[in-house]
Amino acid sequence: MSLLKIAIAQINFLVGNIAANIQHIIEAAHTAQELGADIVVFPELTITGYPAEDLLLRKDFIADANNAIYALAEQVNDIAIVVGYPELNGDKLYNSAVVLHQGVILANYRKQALPNYGVFDEQRYFSEGQQPCVFEFNGTFIGLTICEDVWKDGIIAQTKQAGAEILLTLNASPFNAGKIHQREAVICQQINAAQIPLVYVNQIGGQDELIFDGASFVTDKQGEIVFRAAEFQEQISVIEFHDAMPVPSHCAPHYQEIVSEYQALVLGVKDYVRKNGFSGAILGLSGGIDSALVLALAVDALGADKVEAVLMPSRYTQDMSNEDAILEADMLGVKYHIIPIEPAVNAFTGMLAEVFAGTKKDTTEENIQARCRGVILMALSNKQGKLLLTTGNKSEMSVGYATLYGDMAGGFAPIKDVPKLLVYQLANYRNSLSAVIPERVITRPPSAELAPDQIDADSLPPYDVLDPILERYVEQDQSAEQIIAAGFKPEDVTRAIRLVDRNEYKRRQSPPGIRITSKAFGRDRRYPITSGYRGI
Amino acid sequence: MSLLKIAIAQINFLVGNIAANIQHIIEAAHTAQELGADIVVFPELTITGYPAEDLLLRKDFIADANNAIYALAEQVNDIAIVVGYPELNGDKLYNSAVVLHQGVILANYRKQALPNYGVFDEQRYFSEGQQPCVFEFNGTFIGLTICEDVWKDGIIAQTKQAGAEILLTLNASPFNAGKIHQREAVICQQINAAQIPLVYVNQIGGQDELIFDGASFVTDKQGEIVFRAAEFQEQISVIEFHDAMPVPSHCAPHYQEIVSEYQALVLGVKDYVRKNGFSGAILGLSGGIDSALVLALAVDALGADKVEAVLMPSRYTQDMSNEDAILEADMLGVKYHIIPIEPAVNAFTGMLAEVFAGTKKDTTEENIQARCRGVILMALSNKQGKLLLTTGNKSEMSVGYATLYGDMAGGFAPIKDVPKLLVYQLANYRNSLSAVIPERVITRPPSAELAPDQIDADSLPPYDVLDPILERYVEQDQSAEQIIAAGFKPEDVTRAIRLVDRNEYKRRQSPPGIRITSKAFGRDRRYPITSGYRGI
Repeated sequence: MSLLKIAIAQINFLVGNIAANIQHIIEAAHTAQELGADIVVFPELTITGYPAEDLLLRKDFIADANNAIYALAEQVNDIAIVVGYPELNGDKLYNSAVVLHQGVILANYRKQALPNYGVFDEQRYFSEGQQPCVFEFNGTFIGLTICEDVWKDGIIAQTKQAGAEILLTLNASPFNAGKIHQREAVICQQINAAQIPLVYVNQIGGQDELIFDGASFVTDKQGEIVFRAAEFQEQISVIEFHDAMPVPSHCAPHYQEIVSEYQALVLGVKDYVRKNGFSGAILGLSGGIDSALVLALAVDALGADKVEAVLMPSRYTQDMSNEDAILEADMLGVKYHIIPIEPAVNAFTGMLAEVFAGTKKDTTEENIQARCRGVILMALSNKQGKLLLTTGNKSEMSVGYATLYGDMAGGFAPIKDVPKLLVYQLANYRNSLSAVIPERVITRPPSAELAPDQIDADSLPPYDVLDPILERYVEQDQSAEQIIAAGFKPEDVTRAIRLVDRNEYKRRQSPPGIRITSKAFGRDRRYPITSGYRGI
Repeated sequence: MSLLKIAIAQINFLVGNIAANIQHIIEAAHTAQELGADIVVFPELTITGYPAEDLLLRKDFIADANNAIYALAEQVNDIAIVVGYPELNGDKLYNSAVVLHQGVILANYRKQALPNYGVFDEQRYFSEGQQPCVFEFNGTFIGLTICEDVWKDGIIAQTKQAGAEILLTLNASPFNAGKIHQREAVICQQINAAQIPLVYVNQIGGQDELIFDGASFVTDKQGEIVFRAAEFQEQISVIEFHDAMPVPSHCAPHYQEIVSEYQALVLGVKDYVRKNGFSGAILGLSGGIDSALVLALAVDALGADKVEAVLMPSRYTQDMSNEDAILEADMLGVKYHIIPIEPAVNAFTGMLAEVFAGTKKDTTEENIQARCRGVILMALSNKQGKLLLTTGNKSEMSVGYATLYGDMAGGFAPIKDVPKLLVYQLANYRNSLSAVIPERVITRPPSAELAPDQIDADSLPPYDVLDPILERYVEQDQSAEQIIAAGFKPEDVTRAIRLVDRNEYKRRQSPPGIRITSKAFGRDRRYPITSGYRGI
């Protein structure tokens, strides 16, 4: 019987930092070796991190990445390592995987299926590989594939036909709600059709908008999962293959969807702060549900001592808002400041009195309040080197119910892709672990508190109507007709779609935020600002 | 002898507005018919405008565009029309050109070369066509191609081989400085190699970041230009072909580069304001060169009565700044307001006194001043429905010498892609037409006036050093080593590159602006914010 031990290195890399990533690879290879592995497999484009975007167009960067491979080959000897890198060949760049062992290159594979949809732009950078790659290792024939290759029909079968007994796949497969089930369903079905065992290695970590969830897995040749790594954690695990058949091992259970979403948000905040070198985070705490959730996420990501809250009441702020904000800060053990905004609002009102003489009050005056808060928060962020977290949700981003440079100010927007109804669900989920968000914050009607007795429902359809319309229009690209046919009132659909269409300019200047749905604003949904298209 | 009259319809379309574009096509076809044309040729993706971006992923939008073609076929009869549209065939979308005549489709061509670099994402939307297209019209064989097809080797020759005697090309070729020469050089060489006359139709107009410059042209079979339309203007012209040879006609002269750049900026402002339905524009006028140039551009684009300037002096504003700003406004006949920012700055200083106790003054206090100006300008913009023009230049955007939500606030940034040295050249060019920018504004050392006696040279290398370094690093993707080898001081290169690398987060939240170089920040240069890459 032949015995082969393959390690999965589910690692969190830093895009662009080749030297640090190489160091990480070497350390992980040593760990895998100590665990007895013969081969260790890393995620897609290990050397550069994923996605490195237009860094891949820099000749110096590509030269560094290719040189790093040669250097790496000499530093790790006894264990074979499979790493991803942007392979330069002549004037062509490939998304490649290389097998290094005993100082030599055993095999090199060029990704054949280059995704260029959704958040992916791989055809901007890479040429397509043209053939499968199978190498012999200790008497076993192993095939290499990369990410999209195993989603598309044909490449698995082609690799098996070329002689592979085991298939390795290097991945950078981003998270969204439900993705883990979709991923396993599609790929296990492909494997079942091709009848070859699979080792699927995914990266983990946050990279600007994207979260990679890990959940690497191994299937037998029927496509049954016999091993699964944890979600949202680094993990190095060894799977034994007897005669090219995997020995069943530990399968980490699937999280419930709400747990995955919460974990994704926590990881996103943690990695954005850590990888960008901020000393901590601050946010405006209003007593509303959105900032309450973001505060909880920030504390779970960074620890209470790294987070600061700022209360900025105005004449329209109800007492209960201040009380609840203070209660939240206390429950989470977070330092807070109270800075009423009236002096600045009054100053602007006076400065603008002459030019605004004879005009009616409108959203201009509301925006001034929001922007005074933006100035205060940015001043604290600038002075302390702390990241300002923006607290707006996806429903607001969709319809533009937010003030540019006001509540939209900040470096990172954790719940930008979280619709309002899901904000409530996540708050309840977090409270089920330990009570951190006062019940009243969850039950009171949401309000921007920028005018007397204002509530969101004055300006928008109720969220249990709005959110499903937005999901259909934004995420599913449904037409107004289709949405109305699904049972929504024409006036609600019209209103929602008009607001989405008109507010592209605001979204374009919003901070990046964590993608948790199948279509986030950002890399995923690239709309023109100047547009005569009307969805309705 | 066979006689054929081909009209070039160099038209300005509105992305997304299919109904308006169809109307525009019908009117242009009638004009062409009155001019005696047998065929009229429109730019690439005529029906939808270019680039329609992710509107192309909407099923309803694509259905509308395809239905519009059938409706159009019935509305224009006597003249043949060649229009571009996103052709849906099964589940595939093509970037196509169709020839309509007498209510029927004479020919349909699918673009073969789909650009997916720089500002282009065509492989995100379209499948590649596989074959040439030649149709007979009044005894002449005419070949169809679309934009990138004629830049790439092979497709012109392939179309000629399929029998074409005249080649038509539908284009959406964006402007940048020098592009017109590059475009004509490349394409005329291709034509000379293939020996077939060409009719090249480009669109004109501004679309978010992009400017399309027109300058449509016709070559004989040697690739000599025998007709050229004007730059930056709509134009319908008819070219006669005798026995498939073009009769030389009027060639609009090339503008000098500085004139093209100025015209591009004017068109960009004009179209952004017009196509987005703003009633006019406002801007902050500091007495510095950047806002002076933007004011001149805005007036040239919109007329003085549509533009308003706001002076917002602080304790650091020198008298000559106010004097010069007033002089500029007067010279251009623009209404202005003077709103000193001290009351708001003092209010914020007081509000932050407690939390800032014991800290040193730093850029935080400078940013507060800039952000007070942002609040004022946005309040005026909100109240009046006028577009706020941001006045920052490319040098500042590159190194982050600007305040987020402060001087970076605004809906559109006309000179965002104009390096500081070019700002001076454009100001001098504009003054050569008529004096609108006071000489002192051009000769005094540039200053942000956010601290006592501050000048830009305190924080940055001088612009005649900085700008060439930035051009090499940002536009040409040169490495630090290469730039130093070209003769720049290592400390200047290091400083500039570090600033560029660190300020991606600011650029990501900046308003869109007009692209006039070969690589603008935006669609052209897609860098990660979270990045361990250091160019130095």
